[in-house]
Amino acid sequence: MNRILIKDAKAQGSGQVTLAGFIYNKRLHKGLAFIDLRDVSGVMQLVFEESNEAAFNVIKDLNLESVIKVNGELKEKPSRKGQEDAPKDYEMLVSGAEMLSAADENLPIHVLQKGDAEPDIDTRLNWRFLDLRQPEHLKIFKVWTEFERGLRAYCNAKDYTQIYTPTLMSTSSETGSEVFEVKYFDKKAYLGQSPQFYKQMAMSVGLEKVFMTGPVFRAEKSFTTRHVTEFTGWDFEISYADHNDVMNEEEQMIQSGFKAIKEKVDIDIEVPTLPFPRLTLKEVKEKLRANNIKTDGEEDLNPEEERGICEIIKKETGHDFLFVTEYPVSIRAFYHMRFEDRPEITKSFDLLYRGLEITTGAQREHHIDILEKQASEKNMNLEELADYLNFFRFGCPPHAGAGIGMARIIMKMLNLSSVKEAIFLPRDVKRLTP
Amino acid sequence: MNRILIKDAKAQGSGQVTLAGFIYNKRLHKGLAFIDLRDVSGVMQLVFEESNEAAFNVIKDLNLESVIKVNGELKEKPSRKGQEDAPKDYEMLVSGAEMLSAADENLPIHVLQKGDAEPDIDTRLNWRFLDLRQPEHLKIFKVWTEFERGLRAYCNAKDYTQIYTPTLMSTSSETGSEVFEVKYFDKKAYLGQSPQFYKQMAMSVGLEKVFMTGPVFRAEKSFTTRHVTEFTGWDFEISYADHNDVMNEEEQMIQSGFKAIKEKVDIDIEVPTLPFPRLTLKEVKEKLRANNIKTDGEEDLNPEEERGICEIIKKETGHDFLFVTEYPVSIRAFYHMRFEDRPEITKSFDLLYRGLEITTGAQREHHIDILEKQASEKNMNLEELADYLNFFRFGCPPHAGAGIGMARIIMKMLNLSSVKEAIFLPRDVKRLTP
Repeated sequence: MNRILIKDAKAQGSGQVTLAGFIYNKRLHKGLAFIDLRDVSGVMQLVFEESNEAAFNVIKDLNLESVIKVNGELKEKPSRKGQEDAPKDYEMLVSGAEMLSAADENLPIHVLQKGDAEPDIDTRLNWRFLDLRQPEHLKIFKVWTEFERGLRAYCNAKDYTQIYTPTLMSTSSETGSEVFEVKYFDKKAYLGQSPQFYKQMAMSVGLEKVFMTGPVFRAEKSFTTRHVTEFTGWDFEISYADHNDVMNEEEQMIQSGFKAIKEKVDIDIEVPTLPFPRLTLKEVKEKLRANNIKTDGEEDLNPEEERGICEIIKKETGHDFLFVTEYPVSIRAFYHMRFEDRPEITKSFDLLYRGLEITTGAQREHHIDILEKQASEKNMNLEELADYLNFFRFGCPPHAGAGIGMARIIMKMLNLSSVKEAIFLPRDVKRLTP
Repeated sequence: MNRILIKDAKAQGSGQVTLAGFIYNKRLHKGLAFIDLRDVSGVMQLVFEESNEAAFNVIKDLNLESVIKVNGELKEKPSRKGQEDAPKDYEMLVSGAEMLSAADENLPIHVLQKGDAEPDIDTRLNWRFLDLRQPEHLKIFKVWTEFERGLRAYCNAKDYTQIYTPTLMSTSSETGSEVFEVKYFDKKAYLGQSPQFYKQMAMSVGLEKVFMTGPVFRAEKSFTTRHVTEFTGWDFEISYADHNDVMNEEEQMIQSGFKAIKEKVDIDIEVPTLPFPRLTLKEVKEKLRANNIKTDGEEDLNPEEERGICEIIKKETGHDFLFVTEYPVSIRAFYHMRFEDRPEITKSFDLLYRGLEITTGAQREHHIDILEKQASEKNMNLEELADYLNFFRFGCPPHAGAGIGMARIIMKMLNLSSVKEAIFLPRDVKRLTP
């Protein structure tokens, strides 16, 4: 008999089925053994009768988290006293059992039941494969899967092309900040901090609309809850577009992501309405001061200001997202386009979500003469940028784009305490394992 | 007026529209200029009248590959003499034009028209952003996009979870072969040769069915047409499954990919029928000899044998794909499960496509005692494998999986001369740019 999922067995409600999963809980009681069996779809109580020796002996001495396969009869679970109105649940009276994988007795961390207290994050990450067995943790990756499915559904419907760009680069990349160095045969290579230059190259190619996902690397000694050394970026870039077009595109993409989650994951989540609120940096600063939140200069937002403005916007509009536009040249990359009539302001934006920056976007400067001038002003090495600058010498459509930090949006969506919780196997300054 | 795509303009056939793209070709002729405008969707002839000075002056001195925006009236293109029965085509009589990006006069390589001879591959890769402007080259990434969309459609329909696994590893990984070393703060890290261990960890987590895509790295000094140092892997892994289940899954996934291409890309491609042919390695060797192809030992297939058997199967069945099963222990990784009654044979397979290996798959050994024994036999360092071996100590479902080399399947699908042609920006022993 083919094994089916627990959620499908519950939907079926009766008959003979085969199930497989982990022993989540085990109780012995007057000639009976009760096992809570856990698979990827849910948990079901199994009832073993001591009189069925063959099956009983399989599980009698098995430790928690061992993996078994069972077959038997589905039955409605007797309701508990005082809970006669609760929705129907089902259990299985086991007729046959097979041990597939025995767990050692001493689990390094317990697979917690709902409501149990969590171990500290380092212990959890050391034993990530046990930590993630908790249904609530495992759900993080279901949410990510469906969110990305939604982003892709949007891009596919709009005829985007997907590209994969290289991780290995010959120079230390766009921002000049800390990069990881790789021994590359008899040369040095560097791990990309962003696919920025390559997705712009796709515009020079004429692909017009591209999206991509892949790892990006930051060799920064940051120890915050929102920094890791390797993370998954979601990037897109579009031709014949400015920063406003990119914001229009991004909010639809994200809305599509939320809808996809709601379709497939059993989770209490609200699909954001369109358009997302938009404020200039200047307006944000004014609003912060009007709400008696201390501001720190006029050029950028610090984490407290980001949290503050998101709380204000949430109160005013009910919205969790906020586009902040018109950042000054001083804090933006050399390739951000500037307003012709206000050359100190870039055509750029950040997207904040529940108090955290999850996106930086901008129209890019595509005029080679202006681009070279802006790069020089920012003390970039034009020689190291030669390959990049070439993209603009032989015809390049105007273009704009943005990147989303996927783990950051998932972290905030699920109210996780750290971006590391949203990452399958996070890497930070101290952590390269498991 | 909003710019529309050339293919949409052709579908519309008349009226005032705005287009934008590259100047693919330019001809002057008795008071007229003809420009072939190329965008991501196609090519259209633009007609400029010298009498419309404003528009004519914009393009008069522009070099090929400059980017322009034009508006004007769509008209049916007069048919050529002797071609009166050809399908209708359309051109635009331009009323207004704007220069968006001027190209330098001397293109390092020309953007070829259909039928022109290609420069050598190194020159093409040096100027990849010009090389890819050719509609036939650009199509490679449309095909990849849709193929992956099809793979994902299959996985999403079957409730797979997507994971992203780290690229940075603390040890030099599964096979012990050449890996790239990274300076990681005061430590050493290595770039992953495959996500093998991590996707197996997802089975120990209880995710049951996962897929993933991301870069993998090989520090091998290989100079063939099918080797690069960084490539995109498509991996999947499923619990409560053996190698036969994985082959069943993979052939459906691939078929879904081909169907997605056919839906969206204008290309002559055949959707493969199911099931894909399957032969044991022993049967392959016998068939090769029966067809007078020289075989090289009994333990593996060399590239000529792979090409040979695929040609034979193509002739016999019309099929481009072939699963080869039952490889001996000697040439397989330590974690491949072995047949209980034939311990010298692994429960593994390769998938060949048009003469090239594009997949290795297997059921994995999930019994910790057997796994440790097999690792020791293969002279693996058990201490370095400690994190991996732990996955099997606390309950791990039986599982199996496979990985697909995406660029290899695209290369063979489109009859490209090298895997590098299928990669947006390939990296090899000598190439780290652009």
